Amino acid sequence: MEFDLVIVGAGSGGYEACLYAHRRGLKVALVELSPETVGGNCLNRGCIPSKYMRHGAYLIEKLNHIKNYGVHPQGYTLDMKSLKENRDRVVVTIRENFKRFAEHIGIPIFYGRGILEDRNTVYVEGSDVKLKARFILLATGSSVASLGDLKSDGKYIHDTDSIWSLEEFPKRMLIVGGGAVGVEFAYIYRMYGVDVILVEIKDRILPSPDIPEDSARYLGRKLKKLGVDIRLKTSVQSCSVVDGKVYVNLSDGKQEVVDLVLLAVGRTPNTSYIGLEDIGVEKDQKGFVKVNSYCQTSVSSVYACGDITSQLMLAHKSMYEGKVAISHMLGETDLKKDDRWVPKIIYSAYEVASVGLTEEQAEDEGYDVKVGVVSYVTNPKAMDDGENEGFVRLVVDSDSGNILGCHIVGPNAGELIHQVVHVMRAGLKADFLSRSMYTHPSLSEAIGQAASEVHYGPISWSRRA
Amino acid sequence: MEFDLVIVGAGSGGYEACLYAHRRGLKVALVELSPETVGGNCLNRGCIPSKYMRHGAYLIEKLNHIKNYGVHPQGYTLDMKSLKENRDRVVVTIRENFKRFAEHIGIPIFYGRGILEDRNTVYVEGSDVKLKARFILLATGSSVASLGDLKSDGKYIHDTDSIWSLEEFPKRMLIVGGGAVGVEFAYIYRMYGVDVILVEIKDRILPSPDIPEDSARYLGRKLKKLGVDIRLKTSVQSCSVVDGKVYVNLSDGKQEVVDLVLLAVGRTPNTSYIGLEDIGVEKDQKGFVKVNSYCQTSVSSVYACGDITSQLMLAHKSMYEGKVAISHMLGETDLKKDDRWVPKIIYSAYEVASVGLTEEQAEDEGYDVKVGVVSYVTNPKAMDDGENEGFVRLVVDSDSGNILGCHIVGPNAGELIHQVVHVMRAGLKADFLSRSMYTHPSLSEAIGQAASEVHYGPISWSRRA
Repeated sequence: MEFDLVIVGAGSGGYEACLYAHRRGLKVALVELSPETVGGNCLNRGCIPSKYMRHGAYLIEKLNHIKNYGVHPQGYTLDMKSLKENRDRVVVTIRENFKRFAEHIGIPIFYGRGILEDRNTVYVEGSDVKLKARFILLATGSSVASLGDLKSDGKYIHDTDSIWSLEEFPKRMLIVGGGAVGVEFAYIYRMYGVDVILVEIKDRILPSPDIPEDSARYLGRKLKKLGVDIRLKTSVQSCSVVDGKVYVNLSDGKQEVVDLVLLAVGRTPNTSYIGLEDIGVEKDQKGFVKVNSYCQTSVSSVYACGDITSQLMLAHKSMYEGKVAISHMLGETDLKKDDRWVPKIIYSAYEVASVGLTEEQAEDEGYDVKVGVVSYVTNPKAMDDGENEGFVRLVVDSDSGNILGCHIVGPNAGELIHQVVHVMRAGLKADFLSRSMYTHPSLSEAIGQAASEVHYGPISWSRRA
Repeated sequence: MEFDLVIVGAGSGGYEACLYAHRRGLKVALVELSPETVGGNCLNRGCIPSKYMRHGAYLIEKLNHIKNYGVHPQGYTLDMKSLKENRDRVVVTIRENFKRFAEHIGIPIFYGRGILEDRNTVYVEGSDVKLKARFILLATGSSVASLGDLKSDGKYIHDTDSIWSLEEFPKRMLIVGGGAVGVEFAYIYRMYGVDVILVEIKDRILPSPDIPEDSARYLGRKLKKLGVDIRLKTSVQSCSVVDGKVYVNLSDGKQEVVDLVLLAVGRTPNTSYIGLEDIGVEKDQKGFVKVNSYCQTSVSSVYACGDITSQLMLAHKSMYEGKVAISHMLGETDLKKDDRWVPKIIYSAYEVASVGLTEEQAEDEGYDVKVGVVSYVTNPKAMDDGENEGFVRLVVDSDSGNILGCHIVGPNAGELIHQVVHVMRAGLKADFLSRSMYTHPSLSEAIGQAASEVHYGPISWSRRA
């Protein structure tokens, strides 16, 4: 069968790319392991189900303060079974919607492992078909990394693949890894009444250099206040299951006895067993596919997007790179891969959003940096909503006025950051943000105030975070 | 006493202007009726307390569906007293913060009515002082309009000034006026268990031409579903209080018996008794102060901002105009008054946000209009949050690709709209929004999808709203 484009992998990147390619007039086919994996990790075992549970956790937190609004609940019971059922229903609905929609617009999905046979052919194992195409887009995603000997047993020790099958809340759990996934699960389980120990080998949670230390520290304080037991500079030495309990030996010599361990320690790209080597698609030492700024690999007809192109494993990065690749296939060169301006959102006890450089990164790059920081403590909308915590931090180049980065912690940070994403991508300066219009009362006002602080110094209602 | 600038009115516009003027190096004084009215209508009897109650209503709605997240509350009781106390505490906190802050940075507040004595003098009644200044900024705001004979009695019949003193929920109430204020109160009281009748004289709620009919209808359906009894094309003929009940005779011949009537029928500008006529500041027939695009009145040293300059009585419009006025005082001409691109947010059973032109307005102005509409029904983040209702509607000029308007109904519409506000103000086109980056999953994605629809037609997960 012949196509303009065959996309290997129907995760976030693959399916967004297939819709875009279809829109742009290309004849597209999708290859995906099985009908149950359409949507990839994000949909089936990642952002979508975790955001569902995180919203539940957020609602429990709101419920615990609802008396401030004259509502007095007479207690509540928790039930993971219905949480899980409703969560899984959302996942299945999105997955089935997508399959139906692909069928409706005439995009075939071939099930099985897609293997590159030559620069214009994908062999689909399982379906046993060969798909010919002018272009191939690899969007095969990533898999959970293991941590030495520590592996999911699907019962007492879980990774972020197996945790979704959990049918009851543990009483006490230990999470290994204080990155984005670790802090999200810590918040979720804690709000659902679980005693949570969060173990992180580095000296702070969210140890990525893209997240300012202030954001990490602010979140850490809140998690602790909610009762999460955070252990920094600590690693897991060994784990053993005895009589239904997990005995975890930590690097500080302590032993913790828990009902469940969750490993949240990163992912590795799926770049093996798909024929890359056979046709000469180059990889780097870490196993990522090498691509140019149009997401084109060393074989010109083969493109790649998402988790297999760099350590920045975010669904929207993949979705964007899919568009970059397809635009380039169509002869356009204005869209480019751009890891630097990809926004990153962490959903935990706060939403923690970052785009661009931190203050430290900007200084390391030689910028003379000005920073505007506005706290939500005195933001009227945040006060009305009972969520006046967090801040907006805007990092600006003193010389040019260009916005180098923005870091928001607090309510709706994950949506608010888009204002700055657009403005940065348009090359507009901080002054533009200070002179734009913000509705009153709104959380967005803090963005304009932070921009004004850059120009006029720290005068506003707000204290520094 | 001599100042660079005297601002008459310490409402949203006045106090934002005073901070901005201070930042820009001007020596400023504020004049306000009394210590209790600092913050103006928005803070004391408008957006701030109403948004507090609206958040409570929203939480009750969430609570009614929280079982989907495995949380089973054992019922709840309602208590307006603690709602009111906590609401008023937020208002007082913001007011006192502001006064303390003004004192801290050396801005004096003179209490009493400010009256223009000449083009550079404000006489403060009550304080009995004369303030001399190079410039005067009038920010005196507006007052509730009356509806013929119908007036607040502070007990059975309330307006939006007196309603805040209410200490108990009525069993059954009737709201006169289906505009922004009417639909907000209808939602609030309905969620707190009150039987609400909403009477609107026009053939739709939110009758302003700036709000698309689709937004109004979508909100109307939800209010009805929640049990609000909406009566369109209906007016109140008469009202009488007998034995603690209000008998309301409607234009359709029906009589309703309720515990409380709320009049939500608009406001009139405070432009009388402040000396405008004495020094020759011109007003229009409706009583608004005439200003040029720099908010300067017919007397060059006197500026005006906010509710007294036009029917668009929004706090942020006033805050923006204050900045426009001060920039002009400083000799700058790049900031201009601009009623057209002021975003409008309604907080009711949904957030309803609008900026720029509706489809109808754009067609009336002769544009060849393209519209992109994306529903939240299939937005993954909205599904995770259990709020997958509403839509983004983007109105674009086919010829230029310029964005003419954007109308969002649904979760967080009031924050999301700012993305489009910035992009419109920067003169960026719809194509820019379609090519920007949106995190996944996010509500913001719908904005990018609506922009893509404009270019490529309606293909996406979403159905039309």
